[in-house]
Amino acid sequence: MKMLFENHSFSTTRCMEFRDVTDDVRSTVERSGVSNGMALVYSPHTTCAIVINEKESGFIRDFETLVRRLVPQDASYLHDDLTLRTENLEDDDHDVPNGHAHCAQGLLASASQAIPIVDGTLQLGRWQRVFFLELDRARDRRVLIQVLGE
Amino acid sequence: MKMLFENHSFSTTRCMEFRDVTDDVRSTVERSGVSNGMALVYSPHTTCAIVINEKESGFIRDFETLVRRLVPQDASYLHDDLTLRTENLEDDDHDVPNGHAHCAQGLLASASQAIPIVDGTLQLGRWQRVFFLELDRARDRRVLIQVLGE
Amino acid sequence: MKMLFENHSFSTTRCMEFRDVTDDVRSTVERSGVSNGMALVYSPHTTCAIVINEKESGFIRDFETLVRRLVPQDASYLHDDLTLRTENLEDDDHDVPNGHAHCAQGLLASASQAIPIVDGTLQLGRWQRVFFLELDRARDRRVLIQVLGE
Repeated sequence: MKMLFENHSFSTTRCMEFRDVTDDVRSTVERSGVSNGMALVYSPHTTCAIVINEKESGFIRDFETLVRRLVPQDASYLHDDLTLRTENLEDDDHDVPNGHAHCAQGLLASASQAIPIVDGTLQLGRWQRVFFLELDRARDRRVLIQVLGE
Repeated sequence: MKMLFENHSFSTTRCMEFRDVTDDVRSTVERSGVSNGMALVYSPHTTCAIVINEKESGFIRDFETLVRRLVPQDASYLHDDLTLRTENLEDDDHDVPNGHAHCAQGLLASASQAIPIVDGTLQLGRWQRVFFLELDRARDRRVLIQVLGE
Repeated sequence: MKMLFENHSFSTTRCMEFRDVTDDVRSTVERSGVSNGMALVYSPHTTCAIVINEKESGFIRDFETLVRRLVPQDASYLHDDLTLRTENLEDDDHDVPNGHAHCAQGLLASASQAIPIVDGTLQLGRWQRVFFLELDRARDRRVLIQVLGE
């Protein structure tokens, strides 16, 4: 059994940025030497998602409109009410309201995506790209890529 | 290749209960002896989801509000209309309406979550916890944890 | 380590068709000879999802109603505005509007599902079936099934 784990760091620039990490995943698969197996793409953050879809700017703006309509950014969230909050106050960032981002992450429920590898090739479809989706604001982020197989 | 499968049973107490199963997953990883690989956390139920997010009571109530707004519990669901229903009537519980819970599960589309394991450590982010989310009512439930790697 | 990868082709007949692929997955698991491990069920398309839920026609119609309410098919999507679009125009099908289908796929965020295998048995719950969900229109499609374990 072969395995390779990589941690790729970067900074996002805004809420609803679709960061294309497809080439990161493909190069990890290449370096792993795995011919048949799977790649697990994982976000260790509570306000980001891994999404596989088409890289087309119209869709990306449509999806932003949809998420903002279903989970309004300016609604009132208990997560953001510091007069009520007693947990996780050691988070340096808890004074920046991001209840909407936690809710959007929960709705997408997609901290990871797993993709088959066959004959050394990631089995993405013709139009599929792997995106790290920022649901909060510009922040330092990481994507974890775990390849396993033979 | 090492593998360990565990089936953890418990009872939920109400709709939208977030049951924290992080320690169950961590202890299965420890018992497995797997240093590098992945943990698959799986719900075998059609009205529950596995969700990874922050354990903060404000967020948990915000998310309940969001799910109830998008999938109202008291709307009319064909799944609950026993005058129409011809399938799966051997389910002892089909007389308790839970069409909303099936729809919420479909929307989250999250029967499982997979998490990388590196150097014996589950790669959860600082604020991430793994939750078994009850979308139906108080019921006997199971979460399946499959660890594989080396 | 044992592995088996299969590519199953078929045609869908309409938007929101739930195609039951449970028997495809079970037969791939059988052919693989894997006793303990996992099955990864993957859609290589940007307008389809893999969903695990109950096979009950009331629920299936309820879910169609929900998706259409949250992501209206006849709303205006930038993805469908060919006067603006500059990317991926080599797609033969780009003249058929399917922005709603991309958005619904993004919302479900579910290109794949992973299911544990124990003692040669796929660990689906009593009421769980694995569906390939068509979010676009009648099209030629594929589902990829990757089984790995021992």
